[in-house]
Amino acid sequence: MKKEKIIIVGAGLCGSLLALRLAQHGYQIELIEKRPDMRKASISAGRSINLAFSDRGMKGISLVGLAEKVNELCIPMHGRMLHDQAGNSQLSKYSGRKGEYINSISRGGLNSLLLDEVEKHANVKMYFNYNCTDVNVENASAKFVHNETSEVLNLEADFLFGTDGAGSVVRKSMMKNPNLLFSFSQNFLTHGYKELSFPPTDNGNYATEKGALHIWPRGENMLIALPNLDGSFTVTLFLAYEGGKYNFNNLTNPEIVDEYFKEVYPDAYALMPDLKTEYFENPTAPLGTVRCLPWHFEKTLIMGDAAHAIVPFYGQGMNASFEDVFVFDQILQEEEFDLNTSFERFSKERKKDGDAIADLALDNFHEMKAHTAQEVFLAKRKLELELEEKFPNEYYSKYSLVTFKEDIPYSEAIQQGRAQDLVIQEMIKKGLLPEDMSLEDKLNRIKKATKMAMNNELIFNLEEI
Amino acid sequence: MKKEKIIIVGAGLCGSLLALRLAQHGYQIELIEKRPDMRKASISAGRSINLAFSDRGMKGISLVGLAEKVNELCIPMHGRMLHDQAGNSQLSKYSGRKGEYINSISRGGLNSLLLDEVEKHANVKMYFNYNCTDVNVENASAKFVHNETSEVLNLEADFLFGTDGAGSVVRKSMMKNPNLLFSFSQNFLTHGYKELSFPPTDNGNYATEKGALHIWPRGENMLIALPNLDGSFTVTLFLAYEGGKYNFNNLTNPEIVDEYFKEVYPDAYALMPDLKTEYFENPTAPLGTVRCLPWHFEKTLIMGDAAHAIVPFYGQGMNASFEDVFVFDQILQEEEFDLNTSFERFSKERKKDGDAIADLALDNFHEMKAHTAQEVFLAKRKLELELEEKFPNEYYSKYSLVTFKEDIPYSEAIQQGRAQDLVIQEMIKKGLLPEDMSLEDKLNRIKKATKMAMNNELIFNLEEI
Repeated sequence: MKKEKIIIVGAGLCGSLLALRLAQHGYQIELIEKRPDMRKASISAGRSINLAFSDRGMKGISLVGLAEKVNELCIPMHGRMLHDQAGNSQLSKYSGRKGEYINSISRGGLNSLLLDEVEKHANVKMYFNYNCTDVNVENASAKFVHNETSEVLNLEADFLFGTDGAGSVVRKSMMKNPNLLFSFSQNFLTHGYKELSFPPTDNGNYATEKGALHIWPRGENMLIALPNLDGSFTVTLFLAYEGGKYNFNNLTNPEIVDEYFKEVYPDAYALMPDLKTEYFENPTAPLGTVRCLPWHFEKTLIMGDAAHAIVPFYGQGMNASFEDVFVFDQILQEEEFDLNTSFERFSKERKKDGDAIADLALDNFHEMKAHTAQEVFLAKRKLELELEEKFPNEYYSKYSLVTFKEDIPYSEAIQQGRAQDLVIQEMIKKGLLPEDMSLEDKLNRIKKATKMAMNNELIFNLEEI
Repeated sequence: MKKEKIIIVGAGLCGSLLALRLAQHGYQIELIEKRPDMRKASISAGRSINLAFSDRGMKGISLVGLAEKVNELCIPMHGRMLHDQAGNSQLSKYSGRKGEYINSISRGGLNSLLLDEVEKHANVKMYFNYNCTDVNVENASAKFVHNETSEVLNLEADFLFGTDGAGSVVRKSMMKNPNLLFSFSQNFLTHGYKELSFPPTDNGNYATEKGALHIWPRGENMLIALPNLDGSFTVTLFLAYEGGKYNFNNLTNPEIVDEYFKEVYPDAYALMPDLKTEYFENPTAPLGTVRCLPWHFEKTLIMGDAAHAIVPFYGQGMNASFEDVFVFDQILQEEEFDLNTSFERFSKERKKDGDAIADLALDNFHEMKAHTAQEVFLAKRKLELELEEKFPNEYYSKYSLVTFKEDIPYSEAIQQGRAQDLVIQEMIKKGLLPEDMSLEDKLNRIKKATKMAMNNELIFNLEEI
């Protein structure tokens, strides 16, 4: 058994998985969460009810031996079901390879499972309902106040992890420390989001295709829907706060909400009997990206959303956090459980991947709401699926690199994926991948140009000026 | 006379110029500064003693009718004097056009002049030594505490400006406001800086060439020097906090400081009799960039470093702040002194220029410490000076676009300047601007390629793949 005492602030998805893994290694863990125990209380409104779970997340889950149990919570989604305004729909598969799909999973179900497993370890103490009010990042001590009783809890340890999400108190304590030059950014989109739902049909079935992630792309705004195990869908509206005909600032009464959905999302509207109630009961939440550097200072390390909160458009938020735990665990073992060195290495080595997935998620916002409905995007996707089907070991689309190729880091996926996307779209526009060209020739042409684009060799053709 | 009452937090360079201009329009001004009145107390250590002043700054100064008085404070610097490690020096002029140079100016002298002018207006009340502790950005009220007496000053007004610098309390109040989605970033370089000096020679002369900005580029680190009116130079060391043989973290005793300067800056070392005293007495300060959005909320607007703190490497910090006042004044007059509309327009229209000068300043850090000593950079500069001399209305280098072409915004200067730099360096490397080509042909080739690069037409030559 390892003797070091560790405080983990935040028992959400990342903190719970981290606590479980460190408990398996034998550390003495104090796991503190500001919310009530979700296994006893209902999940707070406004937090996303289901999430996309895929291969990078599974690396973390497999590490702690929970792959089988987590699979039981998963609903496979094989592609994007695109719905146009006339009510037509079309499935755009996520991959041309067999067995590559993402999953819809319940946040509450998964978090509860992790907490149940953590609880089996005698070397973990869990505290719920304790709000972290102050952290000493230099000596790994922290103060907590009980939400109801106002009881104060002072904890001291050898090391402290902040897995307390986008609004991280641990991160704010790092930012306030006068001995640390802390680079930090928070950036909000001009869009917010609101959760709605499709209930199951009267006979208990799913109201629309279960095995897909549904998207209603409308240029500047969009609606998406993910299935739940109980037959319902959680629906999310992404809408600008201002500008355009309809926005969050002017959808202020039931009549105009009704008008908006009827006009813009008629087929989805038909599946939302509780639309007007839900619209006004559920909060409108902002969409932000948080970046910072360093992720560690002295005895403290932040991880997950606390270090790299991202917008939800790549379905990688939870997956990135779980991969954090996986990567940290690898480093920890390489460093023979020296936490000081592991903190430093994790912060240095993982930062570029946090930045990459933040950028990828922002890219995908634009792709989902606009491009998924565009001709060149559809032509690119069609070609990529053909390539992935015929050359499963040779070709990976950007989406596949990010989502299914979990053995390369996000930072490599973004570099190759962006170059590839640029090249293919440009080639399609210029007619350089004609119908009568063999798939193999297309593959070779794309690979060659992608390589040149990654080396910046495509930029200049100055001789011709 | 205009009746609106305006609070201006911060009487540094930006706040003083703004107060003067708004006083000229007849507003009722309360100008509050946390430092003592600099005309009575000495300037605090660690703040840069002299600054680069150029055409964009002059727009703001001319607006308030102080061009002549400010010119008396200026020492023209015609180019960069580059010093190599062997003690050789070479002047690289800032422009090939006649009469284009920048100036070294005393921060204290300029700020004092502005305060003297402000004081002549009966509609301005000035307060020194009052620290702003709280701002209500929605109703333009603020609380101040006297640094010595702890006396509390509560002020209320119709509008409030935050010109309180990089650590702006007004900006922090905007960030804390729950009704505002405030995007914000602070980013630090891995380098810090420390001010040193060359005193005048024994007979009162300048220790080195007066009419230049001196640079000792050493790859990762550098020394610079700007002249003062009293015959001295203010010298600034830019050095990494860690890494390399010498850094701020390991220059911890007089012997190693001596060794470092003797080895790396031998000719400058010979001019610094007080090096070891100054090195340990003067603080090491960080180099940061602050960006945020929006710059206004309800009755409050931030301006200058409070809105866009930048690193000092383009010599544009003060110039950008003075240009802020000029641009705001233009908008204010166009909007017929409607401050609400002017706040909104200024924030929207000026933001892109704040971002551009922040990026330009970061670009120049790399150029100054490394590229100024490189062959392709020197070849580019030589060609650009020839072009500017022969075609003064046709060609502007990036440096000239930013520094001397004050009628185009920073955001246009960066776009054209970056494209031009890329194109020229690439053409020189590829031998596409040979000796025997006429200067006019070179100009045309560069202009054509720059235009294509700006339209992204250079990126693809896919037909050849």
